[in-house]
Amino acid sequence: MHALLRELYPICRSITGEGVRQTLRILTEHLPPGLTIHEVPSGSRVLDWTVPPEWNIHEAYVRDAAGRRIIDFRRHNLHVVGYSTPVQGWVSRAELEAHLHSLPEQPELIPYRTSYYSPAWGFCLAHSQREQLRDAAYEVCIDSSLDPNGSLTYGQWVLPGQTAEEVLLSCHICHPSLANDNLSGVVVAVALAHWLARQPRRFTYRLLFVPATVGAIAWLHEHRHAVLPQIRHGLVLSLLGGAGAFTYKSSRQGSAEVDRAVALALRDAGAAHELRNFSPYGYDERQFCSPGFNLPVGCLTRTPFGEFPEYHTSADNCDLVQPGQLTAALGLLRNVCRVLEHNHRYQNLSPYGEPQLGRRGLYKHVGGGLDGYQWQMALLWVLNQSDGQHSLLDVAEHSGLPFALLRRAARQLAAVDLLAAAEKSDFTA
Amino acid sequence: MHALLRELYPICRSITGEGVRQTLRILTEHLPPGLTIHEVPSGSRVLDWTVPPEWNIHEAYVRDAAGRRIIDFRRHNLHVVGYSTPVQGWVSRAELEAHLHSLPEQPELIPYRTSYYSPAWGFCLAHSQREQLRDAAYEVCIDSSLDPNGSLTYGQWVLPGQTAEEVLLSCHICHPSLANDNLSGVVVAVALAHWLARQPRRFTYRLLFVPATVGAIAWLHEHRHAVLPQIRHGLVLSLLGGAGAFTYKSSRQGSAEVDRAVALALRDAGAAHELRNFSPYGYDERQFCSPGFNLPVGCLTRTPFGEFPEYHTSADNCDLVQPGQLTAALGLLRNVCRVLEHNHRYQNLSPYGEPQLGRRGLYKHVGGGLDGYQWQMALLWVLNQSDGQHSLLDVAEHSGLPFALLRRAARQLAAVDLLAAAEKSDFTA
Amino acid sequence: MHALLRELYPICRSITGEGVRQTLRILTEHLPPGLTIHEVPSGSRVLDWTVPPEWNIHEAYVRDAAGRRIIDFRRHNLHVVGYSTPVQGWVSRAELEAHLHSLPEQPELIPYRTSYYSPAWGFCLAHSQREQLRDAAYEVCIDSSLDPNGSLTYGQWVLPGQTAEEVLLSCHICHPSLANDNLSGVVVAVALAHWLARQPRRFTYRLLFVPATVGAIAWLHEHRHAVLPQIRHGLVLSLLGGAGAFTYKSSRQGSAEVDRAVALALRDAGAAHELRNFSPYGYDERQFCSPGFNLPVGCLTRTPFGEFPEYHTSADNCDLVQPGQLTAALGLLRNVCRVLEHNHRYQNLSPYGEPQLGRRGLYKHVGGGLDGYQWQMALLWVLNQSDGQHSLLDVAEHSGLPFALLRRAARQLAAVDLLAAAEKSDFTA
Repeated sequence: MHALLRELYPICRSITGEGVRQTLRILTEHLPPGLTIHEVPSGSRVLDWTVPPEWNIHEAYVRDAAGRRIIDFRRHNLHVVGYSTPVQGWVSRAELEAHLHSLPEQPELIPYRTSYYSPAWGFCLAHSQREQLRDAAYEVCIDSSLDPNGSLTYGQWVLPGQTAEEVLLSCHICHPSLANDNLSGVVVAVALAHWLARQPRRFTYRLLFVPATVGAIAWLHEHRHAVLPQIRHGLVLSLLGGAGAFTYKSSRQGSAEVDRAVALALRDAGAAHELRNFSPYGYDERQFCSPGFNLPVGCLTRTPFGEFPEYHTSADNCDLVQPGQLTAALGLLRNVCRVLEHNHRYQNLSPYGEPQLGRRGLYKHVGGGLDGYQWQMALLWVLNQSDGQHSLLDVAEHSGLPFALLRRAARQLAAVDLLAAAEKSDFTA
Repeated sequence: MHALLRELYPICRSITGEGVRQTLRILTEHLPPGLTIHEVPSGSRVLDWTVPPEWNIHEAYVRDAAGRRIIDFRRHNLHVVGYSTPVQGWVSRAELEAHLHSLPEQPELIPYRTSYYSPAWGFCLAHSQREQLRDAAYEVCIDSSLDPNGSLTYGQWVLPGQTAEEVLLSCHICHPSLANDNLSGVVVAVALAHWLARQPRRFTYRLLFVPATVGAIAWLHEHRHAVLPQIRHGLVLSLLGGAGAFTYKSSRQGSAEVDRAVALALRDAGAAHELRNFSPYGYDERQFCSPGFNLPVGCLTRTPFGEFPEYHTSADNCDLVQPGQLTAALGLLRNVCRVLEHNHRYQNLSPYGEPQLGRRGLYKHVGGGLDGYQWQMALLWVLNQSDGQHSLLDVAEHSGLPFALLRRAARQLAAVDLLAAAEKSDFTA
Repeated sequence: MHALLRELYPICRSITGEGVRQTLRILTEHLPPGLTIHEVPSGSRVLDWTVPPEWNIHEAYVRDAAGRRIIDFRRHNLHVVGYSTPVQGWVSRAELEAHLHSLPEQPELIPYRTSYYSPAWGFCLAHSQREQLRDAAYEVCIDSSLDPNGSLTYGQWVLPGQTAEEVLLSCHICHPSLANDNLSGVVVAVALAHWLARQPRRFTYRLLFVPATVGAIAWLHEHRHAVLPQIRHGLVLSLLGGAGAFTYKSSRQGSAEVDRAVALALRDAGAAHELRNFSPYGYDERQFCSPGFNLPVGCLTRTPFGEFPEYHTSADNCDLVQPGQLTAALGLLRNVCRVLEHNHRYQNLSPYGEPQLGRRGLYKHVGGGLDGYQWQMALLWVLNQSDGQHSLLDVAEHSGLPFALLRRAARQLAAVDLLAAAEKSDFTA
């Protein structure tokens, strides 16, 4: 995952343009087959929005009186304000200052700034460098284009399952050289795709790689009739590689199955984590959870946006993202999928009194290194709650026992014909 | 408000009699037009009760052997037990003692006592004075009358609104020279009436000035068919001028809209306050919340009855009531009315994805000194929750944002046709 | 109660056999008339189980090389593993060791062990004694029988009430010389039966004295059609005589009336106690609360099984059980019955406003040493909540007032025709 992240890091992405296409071409090579790339023409009406002109940039710099390139887009693509309009010529230092962005409290870092919907140009730089500017005039050059005949690009990868019911996983791919936000989400999603492709699946899985906001809106616009009614669960993935405990922000529905599944997977993992209520600010869950759609889509991150010092600066680089954190995030997402795939309502076929487990070889049977008492409790809880009303997720929440143990107990009980499920669960992971 | 309170303070009120009439005549001068005064004949059956004879008192004193008036009703009307039967003549000190009331633990204060429903006479005095009584006999005189052909008097002020739905505000006016309990409630209600009369209103407002218990019961009896079905919200107002944080006791319903509106106004005010559950003991909310009526009527006070040392003593005087506390109570009640008047369910007219606020001039638009981030959040919360199910009060509770800010956001969103409400809200305050 | 406990203690009980019959014969003498003794033949299918062969034991010992009975069933019936198969002859020390059970951490205590469903034989002894074994070979003798033509025995005592609705109380009687587990439950149930028999009763009371698990299952099997539909409330009683606060484990339903009644009786008693949620492990509530039956049956104990050091050892003897603890348990159960018997929904017959208590002699009437304020509050709470929807148990939970006081208030209010109940309550205790 970290190698892919390093490969994607240098590309200058924005909400439109070649950087997004190049990124999706690289993802095509790394994903299992099936990624499709979609172009939505600039000017298209998508829900309440209009797809903006396509932005591309070839060169950008500031030269001092001595002709030295003191700011150069080639050195770091954060140096240019995203969606900068083209500019060329000499400006006074005062005029230049009006187009500069820096962080006085983090003087060595370059900030990340954009101006998508109001035409403007600008440069971002370290505050320490900005304080060195002494010349009376500077030559500025931004060789960018805003093409009204361009398009917005997004990628979609669909893995069919036994049913048409879908799990939606969405990552934003509109940020230039920022590693945690959100290449971390992208590379974890790619790794999850490989794992999912190897399993028999109840659900169809749909991965989106979309520019934030307008990209998600364009996708929603195009799929609102055919796809949305099938979505049963969804997650927005971002900020999965930095430090900090997992933070889950629930969907607008608040206790959708995916909300409970993530909370359970986090609980069972045993590590510190934080559960937050929905709020209409954040990543693309804002769009998926708008009241007209109200999809069961939450957002999984580690330390949330704006709450770690490297956020939206040049310090959000490949060093910030730790391979072990990516691996743990992948593991957590696998467990979330396991909960969703295996969350059935079972029917106890011997519901009057306890069935005699002993003659079925299940009494105090200690299997596979599992603790015998917990195993016995798992059998009893599954039997007791399996009245066709309680799902395995209900049992896990109610009993405090790990979902994986309860699932195993359910399988054993089904094997001796004590349990039946309406749905079939072929997921073997 | 404090001037009116000082004007009303000296009057000897009881549950019937001239003191109540005089009080209502003064209120007629201070309220906007519309106060009507009602007389309910003694002996009338009102619900389960009977209106008692009308009590009036002209003079009352205790004279010692030397002929000095050592207790005199003219000096303080608390000196006489309310509804004392007439008495005239000499009594031994022992007999007098059986008719005296004082507070050993607050030896300088005169207590407030009544005996409405069991005929008795008595005097109240400072315990320090009582301990000075040495004479063998005293002359007692209570020149009072209990007229079976009299009546109980109450006042009612109705301010029509755009709808017949009513907000009921009730104050008790049966206490003699006690300032916080309850002239404070009376004068705040009068000030609120002036403010309400200047607003276009959704609701009809009905203010009651009634003797406690039997007065409220008489009012309920007379209005139970025509008025009660219109009452949507109600508050009993008392003890608003003393020290201590606001205390709100919710209606029997427990989470009626008025209960939530007061709790929200208190939360938004940011000061310490206390929310208490309903209990069937207290002021006239006992009657309004009896199970047959079960009206959504709570009770707003500062430190509740019985919990401050001046309660029902001569120390509950005009000095105890602080003008700033009355003003703060008026401000709080205005905010409660604002919540009730503006608590609509809105419909987001662009509910699929977020509408593009930027092209409507609402993105990061910082208006009127409001904090930009909070303003943006208010817009997003109102849009996200406006599915026709959530009221603005729901949004305020859910988001933690101030109601006033959300209301402003709703108005702005309605102005750009992003929001519609079933009800119209002309309240401009 | 303690005398009966001491009488029952020496008997060697198991899930079948003469010990159970002898115990039930003794209970016949101590209970009010009505105990019936039921025999269920070995081999009978009962729900998912099969009644095992009847086990009886006449003698059991281990003799050392010198011919001394170093372990002897006659000295303590815990010495033999319950349901031991017969054995006779000399075994090496190594082979004997494979059949011994002791507690290294409690070296002076004899553990309690059984092997009901897998044929085995064994002895239990103090670990300190076990460490003295030095001989090369020992003579072992277990003169037991496992009769496939025997039966399982249980007792049932039914006390008819005014209605067919039942309260089920169940105790297990399958443990040999263990006093707290569960002779304590048995003797408290017997004492409660005498008290119940003296009351006019709304409910029919059914006491079960059953071998754990298979006995309860046999009872459920035989009564599942005729009796179960009548059961309104139930409790499993065990471990009532040891140290420790009461612990109540609620039924699977979680807030059944009996769960709330026990919680209220414990609250009103004012002593420390613990309320636990249902779990499918424990005593026979496991069977009553299996999903097919889902009866409202909780489990009342003091310190629960496995949580006190004497549990399932020879230290669970008559000294462990304290008479005062038994008495307190009886008192608590009486109060639970009082709540269940008197938990009616009343209708306030004067629900519009407060009725005038004064003219009915109820205002500030302080009766029978009760605190006047609480009494007044009880009258007001009962009147306020008696809308036909709230039961007296609801009022007690809501008001925080003792159930007994509210019941008395309800009776007084009914006596003056202010209250009516759909059900009649003749219970006088």
